[in-house]
Amino acid sequence: MTKHAKKIDLPVELIRRYLEPGPIVLVSSAWRGERNIMTMGWHTVMEFSPSLVGCVISSGNHSFELIRRSRECVINVPTTALTDEVVGIGNTSGASVDKFEKFKLTADPAQAVQAPLIRECHASLECRLADDALVGRYNFFIFEVVKAHVNATPKYPETLHYTGDGVFMVSGKTISRRAQFTPDKL
Amino acid sequence: MTKHAKKIDLPVELIRRYLEPGPIVLVSSAWRGERNIMTMGWHTVMEFSPSLVGCVISSGNHSFELIRRSRECVINVPTTALTDEVVGIGNTSGASVDKFEKFKLTADPAQAVQAPLIRECHASLECRLADDALVGRYNFFIFEVVKAHVNATPKYPETLHYTGDGVFMVSGKTISRRAQFTPDKL
Repeated sequence: MTKHAKKIDLPVELIRRYLEPGPIVLVSSAWRGERNIMTMGWHTVMEFSPSLVGCVISSGNHSFELIRRSRECVINVPTTALTDEVVGIGNTSGASVDKFEKFKLTADPAQAVQAPLIRECHASLECRLADDALVGRYNFFIFEVVKAHVNATPKYPETLHYTGDGVFMVSGKTISRRAQFTPDKL
Repeated sequence: MTKHAKKIDLPVELIRRYLEPGPIVLVSSAWRGERNIMTMGWHTVMEFSPSLVGCVISSGNHSFELIRRSRECVINVPTTALTDEVVGIGNTSGASVDKFEKFKLTADPAQAVQAPLIRECHASLECRLADDALVGRYNFFIFEVVKAHVNATPKYPETLHYTGDGVFMVSGKTISRRAQFTPDKL
């Protein structure tokens, strides 16, 4: 593999293919007896402590109001075992169906928030809304993760990373360069 | 593989392992004759059009002031061909060395910004600062991608996804579920 090749221009609207592939997550929420799940791909870690995560939740999603009003959610990380559920949830509106029932997922009670955990996911992060300053302008929510539940194994599960056009990249092998890091950079 | 297993508690400061693995990128910048490169892992797509990308650039990085003052940067996506450069750049301060020279990378002129493209990367996205409202509070920059250069092949390169502790996940196989998507959800 050469280190570089000739580049082509790409319409800037299509750059998601190059930046987006963090793990697809399932966001669960609840408000006044209603609950929902949405598939989300646009998120970033923002701080270690407090543990902050920023994410874009389009106002067109049924979950938007549940999360904005309850100021809580759970960010659940699925693996390839849930590929069809991830796709189905992303292509179904929670306005008319209960997605836990439709997709046969188990809602477990969380400890710090009212939104339910999704038992079948590899990790579930209980979140409280920490800053809504950019919700109006960009639908950008900044959450504080207040409690995290994760499967003990496998250490590196097969996560799904959406690349657009219906195609997911699956997490592959790991390589360690730990010996080359200065301790404060790990 | 069972669909679920018993979960353990995780300190919330460690949740990056579960959410962070979008592709590691190299951010190049320039200001008043000085140039630099930094390794960055905390970013998210925020909008298709205008093409917005939000990212955390710690104020402790030498690049922080170059980017804040020039209000520009280039986000370059490396592949596994540049693993050692990615690690080296992340563990070196640009205060005392020119990282293009030290890591034998080629600075190509960009079209819309003064910051240089890194020729050896798979993709290079020219960015202008679009919103600095959260720079003071979270070191969070919102950039508009104004020009994107990408290699024509391979379509799915081996990108690096940092998981903490010196370990990178490498992008693996792809799976398509295109037939299961409603057109507006692709």
